[in-house]
Amino acid sequence: MRAVRIHEYNKPLGVDDVPEPKITSPFDIIIKIKGAGVCRTDLHIQEGIWKDIFNPKLPFIIGHENVGIVEDMGSSVDWLQRGDQVILHPYVTCRRCRACRAGNDMHCPNGKFPGLDGTDGGYAEYLKTSAFSAIKVPKGVDLISMAPLADAGLTAYHAVKKVSKELYPSTLLAIIGVGGLGHIGIQVAKAITSARIIAIDIDEGKLRMAKEFGADYTVLAKDAVDEIGKITDNTGVDVVIDFVGEHNTPRDSLHMIRKGGTYSIVGYGGEFRDHTVDFISREISVVGNLVGTYNELTELVELYTQGKVRVKVKTFPLNEANQALEELKSGKILGRAILLP
Amino acid sequence: MRAVRIHEYNKPLGVDDVPEPKITSPFDIIIKIKGAGVCRTDLHIQEGIWKDIFNPKLPFIIGHENVGIVEDMGSSVDWLQRGDQVILHPYVTCRRCRACRAGNDMHCPNGKFPGLDGTDGGYAEYLKTSAFSAIKVPKGVDLISMAPLADAGLTAYHAVKKVSKELYPSTLLAIIGVGGLGHIGIQVAKAITSARIIAIDIDEGKLRMAKEFGADYTVLAKDAVDEIGKITDNTGVDVVIDFVGEHNTPRDSLHMIRKGGTYSIVGYGGEFRDHTVDFISREISVVGNLVGTYNELTELVELYTQGKVRVKVKTFPLNEANQALEELKSGKILGRAILLP
Amino acid sequence: MRAVRIHEYNKPLGVDDVPEPKITSPFDIIIKIKGAGVCRTDLHIQEGIWKDIFNPKLPFIIGHENVGIVEDMGSSVDWLQRGDQVILHPYVTCRRCRACRAGNDMHCPNGKFPGLDGTDGGYAEYLKTSAFSAIKVPKGVDLISMAPLADAGLTAYHAVKKVSKELYPSTLLAIIGVGGLGHIGIQVAKAITSARIIAIDIDEGKLRMAKEFGADYTVLAKDAVDEIGKITDNTGVDVVIDFVGEHNTPRDSLHMIRKGGTYSIVGYGGEFRDHTVDFISREISVVGNLVGTYNELTELVELYTQGKVRVKVKTFPLNEANQALEELKSGKILGRAILLP
Amino acid sequence: MRAVRIHEYNKPLGVDDVPEPKITSPFDIIIKIKGAGVCRTDLHIQEGIWKDIFNPKLPFIIGHENVGIVEDMGSSVDWLQRGDQVILHPYVTCRRCRACRAGNDMHCPNGKFPGLDGTDGGYAEYLKTSAFSAIKVPKGVDLISMAPLADAGLTAYHAVKKVSKELYPSTLLAIIGVGGLGHIGIQVAKAITSARIIAIDIDEGKLRMAKEFGADYTVLAKDAVDEIGKITDNTGVDVVIDFVGEHNTPRDSLHMIRKGGTYSIVGYGGEFRDHTVDFISREISVVGNLVGTYNELTELVELYTQGKVRVKVKTFPLNEANQALEELKSGKILGRAILLP
Repeated sequence: MRAVRIHEYNKPLGVDDVPEPKITSPFDIIIKIKGAGVCRTDLHIQEGIWKDIFNPKLPFIIGHENVGIVEDMGSSVDWLQRGDQVILHPYVTCRRCRACRAGNDMHCPNGKFPGLDGTDGGYAEYLKTSAFSAIKVPKGVDLISMAPLADAGLTAYHAVKKVSKELYPSTLLAIIGVGGLGHIGIQVAKAITSARIIAIDIDEGKLRMAKEFGADYTVLAKDAVDEIGKITDNTGVDVVIDFVGEHNTPRDSLHMIRKGGTYSIVGYGGEFRDHTVDFISREISVVGNLVGTYNELTELVELYTQGKVRVKVKTFPLNEANQALEELKSGKILGRAILLP
Repeated sequence: MRAVRIHEYNKPLGVDDVPEPKITSPFDIIIKIKGAGVCRTDLHIQEGIWKDIFNPKLPFIIGHENVGIVEDMGSSVDWLQRGDQVILHPYVTCRRCRACRAGNDMHCPNGKFPGLDGTDGGYAEYLKTSAFSAIKVPKGVDLISMAPLADAGLTAYHAVKKVSKELYPSTLLAIIGVGGLGHIGIQVAKAITSARIIAIDIDEGKLRMAKEFGADYTVLAKDAVDEIGKITDNTGVDVVIDFVGEHNTPRDSLHMIRKGGTYSIVGYGGEFRDHTVDFISREISVVGNLVGTYNELTELVELYTQGKVRVKVKTFPLNEANQALEELKSGKILGRAILLP
Repeated sequence: MRAVRIHEYNKPLGVDDVPEPKITSPFDIIIKIKGAGVCRTDLHIQEGIWKDIFNPKLPFIIGHENVGIVEDMGSSVDWLQRGDQVILHPYVTCRRCRACRAGNDMHCPNGKFPGLDGTDGGYAEYLKTSAFSAIKVPKGVDLISMAPLADAGLTAYHAVKKVSKELYPSTLLAIIGVGGLGHIGIQVAKAITSARIIAIDIDEGKLRMAKEFGADYTVLAKDAVDEIGKITDNTGVDVVIDFVGEHNTPRDSLHMIRKGGTYSIVGYGGEFRDHTVDFISREISVVGNLVGTYNELTELVELYTQGKVRVKVKTFPLNEANQALEELKSGKILGRAILLP
Repeated sequence: MRAVRIHEYNKPLGVDDVPEPKITSPFDIIIKIKGAGVCRTDLHIQEGIWKDIFNPKLPFIIGHENVGIVEDMGSSVDWLQRGDQVILHPYVTCRRCRACRAGNDMHCPNGKFPGLDGTDGGYAEYLKTSAFSAIKVPKGVDLISMAPLADAGLTAYHAVKKVSKELYPSTLLAIIGVGGLGHIGIQVAKAITSARIIAIDIDEGKLRMAKEFGADYTVLAKDAVDEIGKITDNTGVDVVIDFVGEHNTPRDSLHMIRKGGTYSIVGYGGEFRDHTVDFISREISVVGNLVGTYNELTELVELYTQGKVRVKVKTFPLNEANQALEELKSGKILGRAILLP
């Protein structure tokens, strides 16, 4: 089958012919990929940022944001059928550790992350994963546009849900970065919180999209600290969710949040610094966010099927993966790129 | 009356004769001070660290950790009586803002902080404060040793309670710094959480005290990262509460916490830095801590009267305030210093 | 001034001439009433249901759901001005007990409840209450229609917020009773939860109103248990909020909730019974609801000013109070009746 | 092997020779039973109370509170070894439903309950269950006395943990019934909450045991409402946990709890009744409790290995199962009976 693999860091990906995956254990499933989302993490894999964390053997197939059709399954899978359309939770977990049993399956210490840790992912015609990772999608729901929910959307959902208790009516939420994650984050925040939303980006086109998806205010990044001062009478917003996490955003975010407020980090690449006295005198919190849980993905799929969350996509044939990544890198993708095998 | 005031930054405090405070509004009370705790924040006031935050007019009486006897009260105070022994919540709040009504009175934007923000504090024979700040202490309970609960103890209690939901049986809590706050923090953690406790300090005498107050493990600061690696099989502790907050502790704490863990900051003076990718890949949280609430102080007083929390104190006459501060600075105080007016 | 008073249980109210209230303490305010909501509790007061709980001295002015204009204020009130338009939290609290300080001011043991416990209420031209009970309403917002938020809306908001954590996307909430509280409850649930809503009533007109205010399903009360069986494939809904609380609704509600579900009671008059084994084998919860807190009322006012909650009202002149109560009793009021002094 | 089975309702159990269980699926394990706790639910099975809920085919082996040694395992079990000593979570769950993934595995709709629903249980020499139900117990820890933790202890732990957030210092918890569950409940409450504990029973010997296990007050059941009135100055306790759930306890419990308090039901057999107005005017909650989760059992095992929870046991040989049940029925067991196969 055709598959897109990383052979070497900081080099274009290879579009290769490789053998199809086979069922090897009772809970395996084989999925015929219908859409594979293109994620900034894929760029970071290429750049070698994840090398030291996972030390994967190259080459391997990347792609961790997948939807498709059940093609085959192991002997113990009795709740799925060939032909079911599914979205795949990106992380394959052990089902027996404390985290898996506590609703924190993204913290399972025994898991595999296809497309990221060296396990073959979804930039391919077929993918092997665990049946426990699949969520059935009702017939009639547009499957391909859902691909970005599997990771981008799920991470945004997780980050918003984690701070949702703080976002009662009259609160303000600033969302930095209206890209693949951010444009879903805005919609999730509209759907599950009562906060008014301030969208922040360096690009006016993306701010227009933010408005369309429900942002109450839109502000250019360079003016954000000042504008938020004006909007909040210099008290600051209750929560900042930062989908960028590099350049000035960690520092600016500290100037945006109020006393007792929360800075929630989703994007990465930069550094966060602050004096400990600021943590004390303002009693702020800084929280990180991994991808969401399987249950959170079912909730997000529900919002999508109810029409409360839509995904802005741009599709590419599988063999144009390198071009899709290029466009992502240069900020040309509005919403999310999807590869179609 | 005799009172100890700050006249100039980075200079010794003055021991002065000043007029006694008078009732000026219906909810005022005058307290005859029986004990005033000596806090590292008092050193930081002297050093000018709080100057830019509050910009207080000098001189003023410092001291924000007070116990005493009700001497006089305004016309609307009908729930206290002359002669009642009381401990004073350090922050005087407005009672009408959202924070005051939501159980976050320490975030009241309209409050006054006697002894810290330029309002006269408790290094004196008498103190004027609000009746809403007083908590009655039953006759027969040792009042003087309670003084450190009013701020040191309360802050420790607040920090421990804030993370207590994460500290179920089989979890590990590291407490850095076994000083005035830390030695109370250990006892509070024993009383209200199920975690095993690792106490960390640079001083072996303080580690012995930690053991006596209930720590399950004690570790010298220089060995802490390694020792915690051994104790936890390199997974890390669930929570670190850092009562130091300067020098190496912010950096070391990051190496001590597990995936999904929390770094809770109470001490200050240093800087915290971390790459945003670490927030993401480990999904850690960093939380700041202000002083606790009035209700939290009542809870702590209850633990004290039940004998679950004891305070290690060293007393000084009021006019030896400068000496008490010197001993605190040089690490000679075991537990907490208290001035006796 | 003109005022409507209860003189005798189970008799019509008197429309009387009484002296205007006067400021007697520093935090008092006098409000010129612009609208006073007519509540089922007013009927229950007439029927003597609250007699044993409060044992009030008759006659007194009833009415606990008030909006108006600040007319006068005590000497310590510096955050309000004559002419401000305000909505009044119905409960006057002590500001110093644990409940007041913990965000549960509705549980203050030292409070007064004007219009209910024998303290004069708002069926009158003027009302005296505490300045701490007033919430300023911005100029330009329609004040009169807000009156029902002060109690009916606030209680509905409180009940919905209390279960909101259970109402993530894909959950179902049944709301029984689309009257003064229920029609606001539906809108609040739309605004602050992600549940789909099933509205239940005995009256088809009220079900049409429910649909208009956002219910996803509407069901006649007599068919409710069966219909919910069909909608949920016999698993039951996650939460029932019962704004009726008498006749069959407690029993039916038990048949509507799922394993692990919650039955939330707001209306009253009937009895709840269940075998303890049902509590165990299904692990259900039953929760009561008093009126909401001051902070919750500010949140509800925010939803109203954002247009997310509207109130259906029918107005009556003050001296037609008895007629308004009659219409409420016979189920003729769609939404909420308001008296205009 | 020898096994104790129910053949007919309201008849003594049969002590039979039956074939040993065999591994039939990849995650099965066979456990050599070392101790099987005797539970009031076993009596209720005999009495037919559970017949309508599960409609089990008779005969089957009862016993759902088991510890033992791993004897054999299916092909996919790689985290256990023959000879491991284990305690068994009583419920075998599907690992893929929302409840299993959300930390509520006791609400799994696809589970099996050996010893209760018709699946063979642990009153036998060997038991087949799922490897996912086993928790390894360190060598050197007394295994047999742990048996009651598997259900009695776990249910008590679950009930206490569920209300633990309400039990801060200065609160009061009443525990009704100092039997197999209650005597563990008292110790758990001491270990994981800050409440003072009032133990209530009809038997003075059990109250003495309660005192020994940490109760702060002990009260005979017939005096309980009055005594709690005295202890609490007629305000009531914060929480009642009722391990009896029949006769007068539901009614008395309502008279024991304070405004805003919680009545938590664990025992069953009786009926609960209350006027809806009481739910409103006092804003009380009534919560049911199923058995706890797998993770909760690991926490309880941790408290046991730390020595914070001990179990009072009386052992019987397996073939005296009927006698053990008789003694339980007549209230003669202090603590918990255990069968030794």
